[in-house]
Amino acid sequence: MNPGDRVRVDRADRTYEGVLLPSSTDDNLVVKLDGGYNVGIDRDDADIEVLDEDVYEIDGSDTEDEDENAGADSEIEFNDDLPTISLISTGGTIASTVDYRTGAVTAQFDAEDVLRAVPDLAGRANYRGRVVANILSENMEPPIWQELAQAVFEEIEAGADGVVVMHGTDTMQYSASALAFMLETPVPIVFTGSQRSADRPSSDNVMNAVSAVEAAKSDCAEVLVCMHASESDDTCALHRGTRVRKNHTSRRDAFETIGAEPLGTVDYDAEEVTFRRDHQERGEAELELTAELENDVELLKFTPGMDPTFLDVVEGAGGLVIEGTGLGHVHTDLIPRIEELIDDGTTVVMTSQCLGGRVCDRVYDTGRDLLDAGVIEAGDTLPGTAKVKLMWALANEASAEEAMQTSLAGELQERSVPWE
Amino acid sequence: MNPGDRVRVDRADRTYEGVLLPSSTDDNLVVKLDGGYNVGIDRDDADIEVLDEDVYEIDGSDTEDEDENAGADSEIEFNDDLPTISLISTGGTIASTVDYRTGAVTAQFDAEDVLRAVPDLAGRANYRGRVVANILSENMEPPIWQELAQAVFEEIEAGADGVVVMHGTDTMQYSASALAFMLETPVPIVFTGSQRSADRPSSDNVMNAVSAVEAAKSDCAEVLVCMHASESDDTCALHRGTRVRKNHTSRRDAFETIGAEPLGTVDYDAEEVTFRRDHQERGEAELELTAELENDVELLKFTPGMDPTFLDVVEGAGGLVIEGTGLGHVHTDLIPRIEELIDDGTTVVMTSQCLGGRVCDRVYDTGRDLLDAGVIEAGDTLPGTAKVKLMWALANEASAEEAMQTSLAGELQERSVPWE
Repeated sequence: MNPGDRVRVDRADRTYEGVLLPSSTDDNLVVKLDGGYNVGIDRDDADIEVLDEDVYEIDGSDTEDEDENAGADSEIEFNDDLPTISLISTGGTIASTVDYRTGAVTAQFDAEDVLRAVPDLAGRANYRGRVVANILSENMEPPIWQELAQAVFEEIEAGADGVVVMHGTDTMQYSASALAFMLETPVPIVFTGSQRSADRPSSDNVMNAVSAVEAAKSDCAEVLVCMHASESDDTCALHRGTRVRKNHTSRRDAFETIGAEPLGTVDYDAEEVTFRRDHQERGEAELELTAELENDVELLKFTPGMDPTFLDVVEGAGGLVIEGTGLGHVHTDLIPRIEELIDDGTTVVMTSQCLGGRVCDRVYDTGRDLLDAGVIEAGDTLPGTAKVKLMWALANEASAEEAMQTSLAGELQERSVPWE
Repeated sequence: MNPGDRVRVDRADRTYEGVLLPSSTDDNLVVKLDGGYNVGIDRDDADIEVLDEDVYEIDGSDTEDEDENAGADSEIEFNDDLPTISLISTGGTIASTVDYRTGAVTAQFDAEDVLRAVPDLAGRANYRGRVVANILSENMEPPIWQELAQAVFEEIEAGADGVVVMHGTDTMQYSASALAFMLETPVPIVFTGSQRSADRPSSDNVMNAVSAVEAAKSDCAEVLVCMHASESDDTCALHRGTRVRKNHTSRRDAFETIGAEPLGTVDYDAEEVTFRRDHQERGEAELELTAELENDVELLKFTPGMDPTFLDVVEGAGGLVIEGTGLGHVHTDLIPRIEELIDDGTTVVMTSQCLGGRVCDRVYDTGRDLLDAGVIEAGDTLPGTAKVKLMWALANEASAEEAMQTSLAGELQERSVPWE
């Protein structure tokens, strides 16, 4: 049984059929299913049958030892006229194309691997490739944000003119926010992913990857999310990483900027990147990494009838972000307990489950009582972004209170446009 | 110092100026601020100065003893040609108009009070009025949902041709969902509220109240939410109570139906109610109240880095609704603990923080492991609605699992329209 064989695996009442891929550990099998997804299967008690040998050539399986600059080893010549774009993979649906070719084990992949996976990327840039993780994004964790930020930092330091981060869509908005706070960047850092795997006719894989590379070459030195702007295959939207949200479980245009138009667009056919609003331009900022995090920060969504003992879990925590109702409210019975938390040193920040619009706790009594208790308003910062920001601010800012009320990476808008 | 006097109240470093209203307890002052909001102020340590006597006549302050059918006592004649609409107040911004005239203490108000508060309601219906609560809606609790359902039941039993529930906007969607599960109704039950108080030029108070009355006269026997359809004063949208969400903190058109067009609209000037989609029609169902609830049900939103001990809070609980990522995922490390909860008897339901689209846990490994652990998919049911439904289903349905996968009140759509 070797990578490239077609296999059937029976385990725990389930049957998987597909192509065996290289695996990073002996405990797991990785099988590329016919539907296009890679699954990891515990080898224990698994019955494996080889259906057909060597149905695919796994080209990348011998690249494990390459730990030099991958681009330099590539058979594809470096073109001085093109910018160099660094592709960083963290896993997820979009990365499965690359994984399929190179195997999941290589820590770096080269321009050849990239172009074999997405031939449309050819001629657009010189590529460097790097794998930071190979996880489904629901398993993304703050320490991996830190590794990712470090990798992006190193790539830019090594001369990348832009970075594309391939990431599962489930938690892309959280990771993009984390990098937006951790990195001052002179070049674009563009997250992209895929809502449908490469093997499906409706896959958004190629267009998103190509558009992300175009965005990474553009004149916007911010952390962006590049995903389909509509169900059509013509335009990708460029969202500010701190203002974006996955608003649909399955649509290709699931990602939306909240409270504003997207920052820009990529016209796929015209290969044209257009920005509609003010943004930080290439070269404006010096590269800087500040990756420390306070990990003891929680997010709690208030709903009617909520058990107040949820607040006990955050006793002694560094921070708590509340997703309140309306302008930023919770049941008034919770306020004394929130005040105790604050008095004990927990920084408590209010956001709204409405998602659109700003928190304003000066209008109603409940809000005023929350302000009196010491709760900090996050303006129109999205709840998930506020959690990531608070983790970062508590570790790096003299006053987390001041930081939460100041826009550090476009997460807090002066006024939500176009309304209000 | 009497109700109707203009007062200045100093308490705990704050100054309130406005008109004193009747208060339901001796411990509190209720002051109608110039901005239009009523505030309750603790009388302890409050310095009160009367600025001007009797600036307003508080007409309703002598109606406390009226506990008979309020409509019958009204000076406004009952018109046989008009339907009878019951107005039920629970508090919030919209009710403050009525409260202002009648004081907060009366358990019933009559047609005269209604028309004094919103003259535009005249000639549209015979009115009955009833106060179930006078709270800001962030303080709404499941036991008040039950009282509200009981009151609506009694009003319909007494002959109301439709019911309008005045409710604060913060938690309106949760209360509307609760009533949708608790009541089988042969007439419309229409929630309405106000994002801007009656004293502001931009108030949506009158148009929402009028449109809600028109909807309550219409041929749709469902629980609806009636709020501004856009920022213009021309159309209200009629949302199915179980599919609606307050999506903006302050806009007048904050409420949106998720995953579909609104069920219908009310053209304010033309006084025309139009339905766009299938709905339960007037008289189709027999009136029935099933108000029991399992109160020990929680909602938990998963975010990267979440403290797993949040799951300990729900140990032994009747139910847990998880707001997962994407198609319905959490970090795989949480799955064994979720499985323990399920084995201990907690019903665990998966929804998505994406809000749009359906949960589908058959696509990825994490989802399949969650299904294996016994997690129930809620389809495209909104997380907040799923919590309310699970509370209801655990108390009233033989199989909560089956109920959560069946549409009981339009909360679970066959397919989310118009896409997919």
